[in-house]
Amino acid sequence: METYLSTKRRLVNQALNKYLLPSFTFPETIHQAIRYSVLNGGKRLRAILALMTGELFGVTNNKVMPFACALEFIHAYSLVHDDLPAMDNDDIRRGKPTCHKVFGEPIAILSGDALLTLSFQIVAEKIQHKKIIPELISELARAAGSVGMIGGQVLDIENENSPNPAPAGHKKRVLEQMHLRKTAAMITVSARGAALISNARQKQLSAITSYARNLGLSFQIVDDILDISSSKNNLGKTPGKDVKMNKLTYPALIGLERANKKAKRLVEKAKKALDIFGKKAHLLKQLADYLLIRKR
Amino acid sequence: METYLSTKRRLVNQALNKYLLPSFTFPETIHQAIRYSVLNGGKRLRAILALMTGELFGVTNNKVMPFACALEFIHAYSLVHDDLPAMDNDDIRRGKPTCHKVFGEPIAILSGDALLTLSFQIVAEKIQHKKIIPELISELARAAGSVGMIGGQVLDIENENSPNPAPAGHKKRVLEQMHLRKTAAMITVSARGAALISNARQKQLSAITSYARNLGLSFQIVDDILDISSSKNNLGKTPGKDVKMNKLTYPALIGLERANKKAKRLVEKAKKALDIFGKKAHLLKQLADYLLIRKR
Repeated sequence: METYLSTKRRLVNQALNKYLLPSFTFPETIHQAIRYSVLNGGKRLRAILALMTGELFGVTNNKVMPFACALEFIHAYSLVHDDLPAMDNDDIRRGKPTCHKVFGEPIAILSGDALLTLSFQIVAEKIQHKKIIPELISELARAAGSVGMIGGQVLDIENENSPNPAPAGHKKRVLEQMHLRKTAAMITVSARGAALISNARQKQLSAITSYARNLGLSFQIVDDILDISSSKNNLGKTPGKDVKMNKLTYPALIGLERANKKAKRLVEKAKKALDIFGKKAHLLKQLADYLLIRKR
Repeated sequence: METYLSTKRRLVNQALNKYLLPSFTFPETIHQAIRYSVLNGGKRLRAILALMTGELFGVTNNKVMPFACALEFIHAYSLVHDDLPAMDNDDIRRGKPTCHKVFGEPIAILSGDALLTLSFQIVAEKIQHKKIIPELISELARAAGSVGMIGGQVLDIENENSPNPAPAGHKKRVLEQMHLRKTAAMITVSARGAALISNARQKQLSAITSYARNLGLSFQIVDDILDISSSKNNLGKTPGKDVKMNKLTYPALIGLERANKKAKRLVEKAKKALDIFGKKAHLLKQLADYLLIRKR
């Protein structure tokens, strides 16, 4: 899996590099900041999931790539805005100073805006199968928007440092909604978008959706576990921030061990959803297992 | 013209209201902040220009409206992010407290992000003529992106409080580039997008482009003049900010009188570009004259 992922990651990085304007494009500062924020050694999970979903349907990476890059642009923009002093106030991301630390807050805000804008431009201009573009952009926007990823961010902010001793049942419901929106929505659209490009049938689309949704939920739990148990070097960002900011997470709410078990159960559910594809889904199942034991 | 504009403004406001999610949508805060930032009595110039361009080609307002609303969502997002403490740090907009003053900085950042996302969603989902959608989104994204409006914002930031005594010729070039990107790009795409929806021929598209580009340049000069000469009540935002922040503007660079003359010359150029349409372009010409003598 490691070798497979790093091969795909290289492909994705090449494409990202191609779709980004050169750093000498006028005005230079913002194009430097955009490249700095995207080309910084991310995992490229969303893009790779899209490519792998395409492969499940026998569709070449090339056909899915513009959409895969759009996902990474949106992911990168969300990290740049998340790291801002007014938000999570993070100095380090993927082992390097965050965008606003290097380029200042105004350029960081504008770089995020530009990356979000670029993601839709790339889909509109580079997806070969023109007829699918409106639906792709609609799904992408809904996953990234105020009832998707951005809505999840709002819940995240509203539930940190929350002093009210709400009943655990209520907190669990909020937490699941937060994870569904903050993380699972974009991971789900990564797979769904690729399935749409691949002309998947309705039943296949549902299976892929269920897989990616559970994968996304599990991914966020593992993220929160790593924030507690990993070191700064492994993680590439400041660990222990969730506890410090009193964030609502599964490890905080039900403890590390039970959070771990929950992540495992979700991965099992994810894999089961792929059974209709038979052996062809082998790699996607392996990906789910791999993300469970990742160290960053 | 006043009556015509206020009729159209009412139409646009109704459509904006329809396309925005209700304020009780979960999570409520962001949907309240989004509605607050959009439905606050803006001029709706970009939307109305799109509708008027459609009318020039005999196309109903309904067909252009989703695109017109997308323009206003982008405009509203740009104002919310502009007003942030890290950017222009403005407390008042359209006579009311700015978004971050009411909802806090994190929600203001996320509301802007959500509005930008929504603008592409609306075009992708609501434009009836599906085949034109990829081109519309491409043009919209380019006008709003890092070489368009966002690029103009970067130039604006980089040239405020600039202590270096650059030669006037250089400053003029930067200033024109800034206005072309910061304001004219979005005003141009407002008219071009509507012309594309109306299946305009190449020659017509060029004429409309030239009209809107010059209109946009003139509009920004008048904006900068009003910042100096208007009162807070008239303007609905804090006047005199450009001088205080030592912004690069035409009034600052060549004086009020010459700036006024330049705005007038640009409006004449804009109107002349419409001559190929004959009498049908009457209203668009009137709009150009009207924007020159506006008080806010």
